[in-house]
Amino acid sequence: MPQLILLSSDKDKYQRLIESAQLPDLEFVTNPAQAELALGEPKAIRDALPRLSQLKWAQSIYAGVEPLVDPSQRRDYVLTNARGVFGEWMSEYVFGYLLFLEKRMLDRIKAQQSREWKRDESGTLRGKTIGLLGVGSIGTHLAEMAKHFGMNVKGFTRESEISTQVDTYYHGNDLLKFAAGLDYLVSVLPRTKGTNQLVDQAFLQALPDHAVFVNIGRGNSVDEAALVEALQEGKLGAAVLDVFEQEPVPVEHPFWSTPNLYMTYHTSAISYPEDITKLFIENYYRYCEGKPLKYIVDFEKGY
Amino acid sequence: MPQLILLSSDKDKYQRLIESAQLPDLEFVTNPAQAELALGEPKAIRDALPRLSQLKWAQSIYAGVEPLVDPSQRRDYVLTNARGVFGEWMSEYVFGYLLFLEKRMLDRIKAQQSREWKRDESGTLRGKTIGLLGVGSIGTHLAEMAKHFGMNVKGFTRESEISTQVDTYYHGNDLLKFAAGLDYLVSVLPRTKGTNQLVDQAFLQALPDHAVFVNIGRGNSVDEAALVEALQEGKLGAAVLDVFEQEPVPVEHPFWSTPNLYMTYHTSAISYPEDITKLFIENYYRYCEGKPLKYIVDFEKGY
Repeated sequence: MPQLILLSSDKDKYQRLIESAQLPDLEFVTNPAQAELALGEPKAIRDALPRLSQLKWAQSIYAGVEPLVDPSQRRDYVLTNARGVFGEWMSEYVFGYLLFLEKRMLDRIKAQQSREWKRDESGTLRGKTIGLLGVGSIGTHLAEMAKHFGMNVKGFTRESEISTQVDTYYHGNDLLKFAAGLDYLVSVLPRTKGTNQLVDQAFLQALPDHAVFVNIGRGNSVDEAALVEALQEGKLGAAVLDVFEQEPVPVEHPFWSTPNLYMTYHTSAISYPEDITKLFIENYYRYCEGKPLKYIVDFEKGY
Repeated sequence: MPQLILLSSDKDKYQRLIESAQLPDLEFVTNPAQAELALGEPKAIRDALPRLSQLKWAQSIYAGVEPLVDPSQRRDYVLTNARGVFGEWMSEYVFGYLLFLEKRMLDRIKAQQSREWKRDESGTLRGKTIGLLGVGSIGTHLAEMAKHFGMNVKGFTRESEISTQVDTYYHGNDLLKFAAGLDYLVSVLPRTKGTNQLVDQAFLQALPDHAVFVNIGRGNSVDEAALVEALQEGKLGAAVLDVFEQEPVPVEHPFWSTPNLYMTYHTSAISYPEDITKLFIENYYRYCEGKPLKYIVDFEKGY
């Protein structure tokens, strides 16, 4: 009889949702020492790890699991994260912001404030080239939506080539070749040692001056000082940032007032208990049947 | 040997594009009395009509052809308009603005100006219901994109049911039934007698209070005073208007300062000579072969 502990600020909601699925043999416990299974925010699971002496499987309700893959933490259990549920959120966010910029929405609002019938031409996504830095579950969804908008898609990954909607893949040393000619660059990279400062000065210089950079991955992948400089010098069209090296961003950080930089405070995707519960239920049946779980995190890779 | 007159502010570009297609037997003329074919803006064609004594076919470079279907004008020629080329533009515009609102982009910008890490939750298009007032070539494109975003689609038309992506069609007296429960309403209606003030006070009252109204059709379909009232009283979430009863909108019009009303000055779609030339070439071959042309306007219906 597997015993589950809920370590989430939404734990009442999770309990209701999981109970209504009437999973066989599952029992809820509140004492960490009794729990074989845990579900919750990565930080909350990490804080409970020393007391989770029976832990065999933990389900993170987020995609990013940095607190749990930190080398100082135990790794004697199976960690699964949330995948396949954020692609739609990320698509809405990315294409929403690209359209916000192409359609000059702020200019239109300013013209309205001055009662000016101002017909500056809009841009279009059609025929543009988007580059995806990281093509996993979210990147695959982005590539598909980009195709619906008539775009060309380039993808940079370590080695995988999952999505068939990516026109051209780049790996390894081809990072600057990947950057050349991009109209839009979207980073979906997780925080790992290998992704630190991948978007650095050289990368930013390789992008066309009109390019738009969107970061929905993690803040560590960006050289923030180089990004500010590129925007201030007009070497980059715009940046839309949902994630940052330090969150919340300190009040004195130059980002707050950098021109053509849009901040969205880590709101691009929302972890809905309804979505996560589906993943948990699917994996719970596999767990009971002794099958390998889905969405297993590789502690070494960090995702 | 068909003789074509170009009546467009882009006539040099059209001439280059059409010439490079090397159409058999086609000759360009500048004297209206010699022209059997005309291509251009509807107003320019209308102004030339009295002198176009040989006119057999006119290709409008716009979708809306009000100046030419006016009952005071001759109708002894075939009029074709631009179709199938604006769907992508309109899709980008409509879903761009819906995402602009759902993602609270203006709030995020205001928070940034006050250096506030403000994590209000974003909304989503997924699972929402969009209602298309008019489902022709543009509406069909919108329905398809709505499906890519996981939305429910309702359509209101006179009688046609062209798009298979529309979940439920409404006709005739079911206008208020169509309005009930819509999260978003998009009007793609052309200016005709039958579309005057279709979106009136009763229609606006039938919409949920949070609904967003987008008008990319023509301004005549809206009771503008009722729309202002609905927004002022919080009976409508927002309105995004590209078209208006009178354009440019007079400086004293209440629209300029109505809350949650976004004006875009008839910029949602751009008529690209490259796109229109393709339609013209396709139809030119049909014309020469004596086949019926595509995209023929019904002078009575007005579209």
